[in-house]
Amino acid sequence: MNLHIAQRMHNIKPFIVMELLQRAQQLQAQGRDVIHMEIGEPDFATPPLVQAAAAKFLQQGDAKYTAAAGLPELRAAIAAYYRQNYGVAVDAGRIFITPGASGAFLLAFGSSLNPGQAVMMADPCYPCNANFVQLFNAETQLVAVDPATNYQLDAGLIAQNWRANTSGVLIASPANPTGSLLSNTALAAAIDQVQALGGCFYADEIYHGLDYAEPPATALASHDQVFVINSFSKFFGMTGWRIGWLIVPDSHVAVVERLAQNIFISTSSQAQYAALASFSAENMTELRRRRDEFKIRRDYLYENLLRLGFKITAKPEGAFYIYADCSTFSQNSYQFAKDLLEAEGVAVTPGTDFGYNGADKHIRFAYTASIPRMAEALTRLERFICR
Amino acid sequence: MNLHIAQRMHNIKPFIVMELLQRAQQLQAQGRDVIHMEIGEPDFATPPLVQAAAAKFLQQGDAKYTAAAGLPELRAAIAAYYRQNYGVAVDAGRIFITPGASGAFLLAFGSSLNPGQAVMMADPCYPCNANFVQLFNAETQLVAVDPATNYQLDAGLIAQNWRANTSGVLIASPANPTGSLLSNTALAAAIDQVQALGGCFYADEIYHGLDYAEPPATALASHDQVFVINSFSKFFGMTGWRIGWLIVPDSHVAVVERLAQNIFISTSSQAQYAALASFSAENMTELRRRRDEFKIRRDYLYENLLRLGFKITAKPEGAFYIYADCSTFSQNSYQFAKDLLEAEGVAVTPGTDFGYNGADKHIRFAYTASIPRMAEALTRLERFICR
Repeated sequence: MNLHIAQRMHNIKPFIVMELLQRAQQLQAQGRDVIHMEIGEPDFATPPLVQAAAAKFLQQGDAKYTAAAGLPELRAAIAAYYRQNYGVAVDAGRIFITPGASGAFLLAFGSSLNPGQAVMMADPCYPCNANFVQLFNAETQLVAVDPATNYQLDAGLIAQNWRANTSGVLIASPANPTGSLLSNTALAAAIDQVQALGGCFYADEIYHGLDYAEPPATALASHDQVFVINSFSKFFGMTGWRIGWLIVPDSHVAVVERLAQNIFISTSSQAQYAALASFSAENMTELRRRRDEFKIRRDYLYENLLRLGFKITAKPEGAFYIYADCSTFSQNSYQFAKDLLEAEGVAVTPGTDFGYNGADKHIRFAYTASIPRMAEALTRLERFICR
Repeated sequence: MNLHIAQRMHNIKPFIVMELLQRAQQLQAQGRDVIHMEIGEPDFATPPLVQAAAAKFLQQGDAKYTAAAGLPELRAAIAAYYRQNYGVAVDAGRIFITPGASGAFLLAFGSSLNPGQAVMMADPCYPCNANFVQLFNAETQLVAVDPATNYQLDAGLIAQNWRANTSGVLIASPANPTGSLLSNTALAAAIDQVQALGGCFYADEIYHGLDYAEPPATALASHDQVFVINSFSKFFGMTGWRIGWLIVPDSHVAVVERLAQNIFISTSSQAQYAALASFSAENMTELRRRRDEFKIRRDYLYENLLRLGFKITAKPEGAFYIYADCSTFSQNSYQFAKDLLEAEGVAVTPGTDFGYNGADKHIRFAYTASIPRMAEALTRLERFICR
């Protein structure tokens, strides 16, 4: 054992999907056609208006450091978006522009978590969220969730699982990998419960906008003093630009600003000027068109996975994932994913990347591929499970 | 006290210069002309070839996530740069592209430091470097340095100050705020000493290229298994793009990759494609021209500060700072900086931002302004100290 590997690194697991992705790339290099349904990245390009704004900035602007908290006009635009989209007033001074939601998590947990404290989150969940907690030598308290609560934590589970060292709760809605949403009333009740227990509430809202039923409320609609993590990557289609935002409670404005100055200096100025174009009516229309396309794909994939014999307890209402029970075909999702890739060139993510709760029996399918590509993938998948 | 402010935040001090910068902006909003000699950012625009590469990528490319470690071609280009510029062979697999040197520090310390361990660094030093250590609940062990070692740690100071919990040493050369360099032999001896003591060595080389005498060797030239932090911000002139790199010991390749996947996903794809244009002969010629301009400014500012009665023990040989002893005029550098700004509209950084060692008696002047602007600043400064 190397003395200089930090202990926290033993708790930060590698993503199994990266191994599969590497193998997929090898196969592609050998000339095999691989269909990627493992990737959590929209297949749409950067929206044209955002692209144009970036080009304009590149011609006119000078890419210098911005204020650590972000461009004032972008913070104001996000505040206006909360007013218009959610009917919520939030002071722009509480909004921090970050290098992706990743940067938002660094600031949120870095400013609020001590070593040995624990953050409660659902199992299954997105593994990075848990690993940000490990980064600060704090603990992830995974609570198994199931269809009874739509694969989400709720007030009851929070109360039941609260421990002496629990300092907060993270809820991601829509969730990765399940695509599940917590209803607006259940979300409000969950935050009530956390606040009654004296904890911090962290709302991961990065899949907001990619929702296909009742639009989710922001956590801020029911409780003003929470952390909200969001991103320009998913609904806004700007993954590679690395830009997101964090809204913090009033108590944390000064410390988060100090932390941002120290650990980022600032977020990419190109990305910030480009993101400014996100909120125009014309761009929002384009983004909603893309959302509708995702919905059509969701329906298509959902029906076809059911047809093939996968079990999906509830139709996912957000994000771009279906978390399907593959136990009819395999009790080992990792082996299933590896074999599927080798035999048919279809890449998917095994449940084992998302926790421990039924992980061996689940596969995450991302519908970040077009319908024709998914049709081909389903043909191959059918051949694979009937082999 | 808010229960949910993490303890580490009490050890992460605000930058005093931010308060001065805010006041400077207020004065400017009132129509005052403020000369900025407080900012650690080159005043040159992004190099034209880098700008052109970014524009080309914007037209052709699609800004998706890249591999967490960075574009393979950029990692290879950096490896080639080490071969050509330093005569050092470094495997591209050990090079990680990061969101600025900030991201490099997050990975280096996050992967190697446990709470309670200590990293030794010089006082004065760049405050963020110390604060990255605090972020991981580790300790900064500041060692007062003076002209005897050219304001740098050396093997003797390292041996003398090593404690039971010291796990590593950071040396920044050229240094911020002093602009001082450690000679190549002294650097090699310092790393020898750290390795003999069983510690990690972290080399902050972000001001490499901006050096005005004997070109500094990279730490890798004498010792292969060290951490090297570098950046496209300073010599390469890409501050607002937020891109840098980290070279890690073989022992840390796998864990740093895992950490990067979790805490960044990837670095801005625009910035990476733009940075690829940095290493062409034509661009390097432009960068060296800018370096020569900085050297002329350094000479100009150095001579004039001496003329006015500031004490500067050694002529700084790198970066774009002069750390001048103002004790002839004031024993309170913070008050001096505040009064200078109010009276004359010249913004500088008080030594108190950089540590405790003689901090009250020093002012950092950044020569990131043109000679005519500095001439005006010096006229005002002279009036101020003769008032």
